[in-house]
Amino acid sequence: MGNDPTMRELGEFAVIDRVVADRRQPATVEVGPGDDAAVISVPDGRVAVSTDMLVEGRHFLLHWSTPHDIGRKAIAQNAADIEAMGGRPSAYVVGFGAPSDTPARHAAELSDGMWEEAAKTGAGIVGGDLVSSPHWVVSVTVLGDLGGRAPVRRDGARPGAVVAVVGELGRSAAGFSLWDKNIGGFKELRRQHLVPEPPYGQGRVAAEAGAIAMTDVSDGLVADLGHIARASGVAVDLSLAALAADHDALTQAGQAVGADPWDWVLGGGEDHALVACFTGMPPAGWRVIGQVVDGPAEVWVDGRNWTGSVGWESFS
Amino acid sequence: MGNDPTMRELGEFAVIDRVVADRRQPATVEVGPGDDAAVISVPDGRVAVSTDMLVEGRHFLLHWSTPHDIGRKAIAQNAADIEAMGGRPSAYVVGFGAPSDTPARHAAELSDGMWEEAAKTGAGIVGGDLVSSPHWVVSVTVLGDLGGRAPVRRDGARPGAVVAVVGELGRSAAGFSLWDKNIGGFKELRRQHLVPEPPYGQGRVAAEAGAIAMTDVSDGLVADLGHIARASGVAVDLSLAALAADHDALTQAGQAVGADPWDWVLGGGEDHALVACFTGMPPAGWRVIGQVVDGPAEVWVDGRNWTGSVGWESFS
Repeated sequence: MGNDPTMRELGEFAVIDRVVADRRQPATVEVGPGDDAAVISVPDGRVAVSTDMLVEGRHFLLHWSTPHDIGRKAIAQNAADIEAMGGRPSAYVVGFGAPSDTPARHAAELSDGMWEEAAKTGAGIVGGDLVSSPHWVVSVTVLGDLGGRAPVRRDGARPGAVVAVVGELGRSAAGFSLWDKNIGGFKELRRQHLVPEPPYGQGRVAAEAGAIAMTDVSDGLVADLGHIARASGVAVDLSLAALAADHDALTQAGQAVGADPWDWVLGGGEDHALVACFTGMPPAGWRVIGQVVDGPAEVWVDGRNWTGSVGWESFS
Repeated sequence: MGNDPTMRELGEFAVIDRVVADRRQPATVEVGPGDDAAVISVPDGRVAVSTDMLVEGRHFLLHWSTPHDIGRKAIAQNAADIEAMGGRPSAYVVGFGAPSDTPARHAAELSDGMWEEAAKTGAGIVGGDLVSSPHWVVSVTVLGDLGGRAPVRRDGARPGAVVAVVGELGRSAAGFSLWDKNIGGFKELRRQHLVPEPPYGQGRVAAEAGAIAMTDVSDGLVADLGHIARASGVAVDLSLAALAADHDALTQAGQAVGADPWDWVLGGGEDHALVACFTGMPPAGWRVIGQVVDGPAEVWVDGRNWTGSVGWESFS
């Protein structure tokens, strides 16, 4: 066994010991890692739960992302699902599969990235499973706390409400194109593709401000608002003028890769912005980008169907 | 698109619709599948949580197990982790990765198996993630309810306590050998390898009877009791005589494959029996198989170290 032992050389239990050591769990964790299950206190009497699976080659590439990046992204996208219900994360559990010849330090780096991102959300990683797999698979489940508020669902949108967003749009998709076409520069956009920056805390803010429907932008703005439109039985009309700043921030990158920035703003997912519907004005920091109207359950852009790229589909 | 469409042909959202349709969620599910997160009521004010990842080729083979079998096994082994804390499952979330050319009905069959097993535990599947992956990966997270009782941990064993077990030992390992050596007959053992039968409800029974430490047999009896011995700082001494019936039930299979049944009984995992320590007599249905004694944190068999096969290791 050399200076950089593999998972096989170090062994499952030694790797787990290394990943778990010296982590500071929040006070809500009654039983942490190392038993058959963890136990978390949930004073709300309800728990929100969501899960995401990231597969090497499909959701990340090991020659683009470091293990630390992958850990941050996996936690961030799960946290965003709890934000989108108006809650905040309480705890995460993680399944990690990797080949036996993976350096064990990669598991430690993945875990460090996860803990760094989890700490931003005020929660810890309370358990997991470490297995051998022909390629990397990272599966995160997040538990969340609604703080006594009703969950903000996708089916509450009503005509007359405004549609507002907080967080970035199109950045991750622009970054992906830059990576994909191997175009240098645009460091921040390339970074935002690897590690999204969800607007932590704004889910609770929206819920307290009376949001009637909310989701995070994981598949693409038009695609995700389509989920709200269908669940609520309403039409959503977006305004290009209101999204001009998002578009303009990507003009240079669009020219560099020969793409239309509107495809990124309207069709690009993975930034994990929050988009919500409010019957009154949205909270500070949110920008109005459209309105909920009577009509078929679909998303329009300036009153028309959008014909560009609409979003991510797992098996396409 | 033919009569047996693939995941790619049907598409992520249509497959999810098919998997989610007509499922009856327990009353504790406030928000089920279809939103950013599910919401479960947890009147206990605490939630137990555990996760397991199963990888094709490592934890199951598609030419041994049907998708339905894999679904049942994935739920069963997660449920056993909650049983091992003295709780009962409240809800499951599932991540499923498979190649794009997988028949979509396989996802439905996997889901049917999961629901069949979940129903035995009194819980439903409240959310999930469906992704494209070069090979099958099934990741299950279980949430559990402790019913107001303290969790039964691994670190509570004390000298003088008896060690008792409920459920099967060595059956799954025997079944694996039969499959592996392609030996016919022994239908029940082969079946028990594909779909374990944890003793549902006995975790709560043990907790109510005052169990001071408990785990489920997932890695192997000696290996899993080793976790209790190390967490508690005690020695565990098993009695071969007390395990004779478990051994004798596997004599014929042992002869058929040329294996020592003791390796299966003491070293074989995946049956998800429950093994617990009690200061008094164990509950009805549990059988005493050893005792907790003063000594180094290890597991003995009739006072000696066991030199046979000791258990599963992920990267071996």
